[in-house]
Amino acid sequence: MYIDLTLHTDFLSLLFPMSPIMLHILGCGSAKPTTNHLPSAQILEMRGKFYMIDCGEGVQTTMQKMGLGMLKVGHIFISHNHGDHVFGLPGLISTMALLGRTAQLHIHGPEEMREFLNMVLKMYCEGIDYEVIFHPVRTHEHYLIFEDRSIEVWSIPLNHRVPCSGFLFKEKQSQPHIRREMIDAFNIPVSQINNIKAGASWTTEDGTVIPHERLTTPADPARSYAYCSDTRYAPEIAKWIEGVDLLYHEATFPHELLTQAKKTMHTTAKEAALVALKANAKKLIIGHYSARIKDTSLLLQEAKEVFSNTILANERLKVSIL
Amino acid sequence: MYIDLTLHTDFLSLLFPMSPIMLHILGCGSAKPTTNHLPSAQILEMRGKFYMIDCGEGVQTTMQKMGLGMLKVGHIFISHNHGDHVFGLPGLISTMALLGRTAQLHIHGPEEMREFLNMVLKMYCEGIDYEVIFHPVRTHEHYLIFEDRSIEVWSIPLNHRVPCSGFLFKEKQSQPHIRREMIDAFNIPVSQINNIKAGASWTTEDGTVIPHERLTTPADPARSYAYCSDTRYAPEIAKWIEGVDLLYHEATFPHELLTQAKKTMHTTAKEAALVALKANAKKLIIGHYSARIKDTSLLLQEAKEVFSNTILANERLKVSIL
Repeated sequence: MYIDLTLHTDFLSLLFPMSPIMLHILGCGSAKPTTNHLPSAQILEMRGKFYMIDCGEGVQTTMQKMGLGMLKVGHIFISHNHGDHVFGLPGLISTMALLGRTAQLHIHGPEEMREFLNMVLKMYCEGIDYEVIFHPVRTHEHYLIFEDRSIEVWSIPLNHRVPCSGFLFKEKQSQPHIRREMIDAFNIPVSQINNIKAGASWTTEDGTVIPHERLTTPADPARSYAYCSDTRYAPEIAKWIEGVDLLYHEATFPHELLTQAKKTMHTTAKEAALVALKANAKKLIIGHYSARIKDTSLLLQEAKEVFSNTILANERLKVSIL
Repeated sequence: MYIDLTLHTDFLSLLFPMSPIMLHILGCGSAKPTTNHLPSAQILEMRGKFYMIDCGEGVQTTMQKMGLGMLKVGHIFISHNHGDHVFGLPGLISTMALLGRTAQLHIHGPEEMREFLNMVLKMYCEGIDYEVIFHPVRTHEHYLIFEDRSIEVWSIPLNHRVPCSGFLFKEKQSQPHIRREMIDAFNIPVSQINNIKAGASWTTEDGTVIPHERLTTPADPARSYAYCSDTRYAPEIAKWIEGVDLLYHEATFPHELLTQAKKTMHTTAKEAALVALKANAKKLIIGHYSARIKDTSLLLQEAKEVFSNTILANERLKVSIL
């Protein structure tokens, strides 16, 4: 039996209008892994689709432990071409092939990573049954790099030792919600629901017009998530992520190691919080901890003094964006 | 203060003559990682030195969890250029640089992996403070590929889908043990101990000759370890590993999946045991389990029916070779 999953998903969304956007943290350490933290990797889950952000070594194993199916990943967004953000790609691409993947895999990242990707594909992935398509990101520009039915993904120019961009995921404005009791009361056929969601009114058999507004409740506000790692303190990005629902920002060092942060082009916990404050973010999650940091709660405390709604990233943490 | 660690180690070995050889299993799964098993990687520890064998993704993290210092690895032996045996190298090499390594790192493996290694070094390791030296292994020959003061490492031609060799680690014959009570009884200075170990007798002040045999007890027998993965059943290798103390042999499938084993050029548990039997190995450890195997105890049972002194490899298992 053939099921049109596109329509099916739409129909489900009538009954369950607001599916959560879920951020899964796979790794939130920095370059040197520790017994506590793995290199950078995340999955943003929206409407059953997985958007991966960075791909540090070990992502496959962590995804398996978290029960996250690798084949659900359609797009991978790589911030920059440092090993702790890309060394999970060879294994992930290979394992997807072993799992029987046939769907295209899209990788968005800086031009600098193309050679690595091409070499991995040439040497280790000959004859795989799916296509890997690389989309170079112009890391110094803020622009729409990708969109599908659910989201837009915008680049956020960052300031690191190599070309690097963050990513802003903006949910597309959804349609208003159907009032189920009105549908029942006026015996409106299911086939008309999409029209009504799109703005139509309904005319009953006796000619009475039931206006669109009586048949629906307003659409949910579109949600957004911003990922900013790795970067030296860059308050100028606030304008691009104004009002973001959740901001992940690197906080590699405490502010007392500001000199080290400047030298390595990273951000302190205090500075990450200042970005969240300036951007009017609703919530901040910090990560990319230096291996030198034994007690991340001190980073949390430092950030909270500037921006109270801050939490710490951790491996296998799931954060819902409501 | 300058300490000559070479002499120091020798002196210690007088007092603690037989240090254990320890095999640390870091990963014993096959290409597709599971929640139970990581891709292939091991460390053979001998006289304080680490010899790494294969380097699957995730080795750094596992080494940290096992308390194994990365900088102790001087030589890495790669069996073949498949991702599940090499994808841990980029991260390991990078992290060694972050840890301040200055000592050369030697990588022995098939010519086919040179391009991958060169690309990783070029793209991700520019300016590191140590040298990575690649030594190609002629995988179709059985020959001495490396030796130092402690061991010889011999290649073992295997039969896989790509050029592949196992490795035989043979401890060098040690010197006889000094009898401490004789040293004390005849007031023999420490400076003479190496001569006596090397075969000299001792002449006392009154001219009495104390023969070498009275001053020493016989040397311990040299120990050996063989690593054979990945390979189709290859009983012809038995002649090269005759009498080996410990044999790690891949046992990807149970014998009921022999067709699959032949197709993918792997070995069944029964066949691995037959190799151990033919080689008069003292002990067999099986691993490289297919992701399809949910219960490895069935593999163990199958192998034990042929070769009773068999154990199962597992992540973080330590096996001493006495």
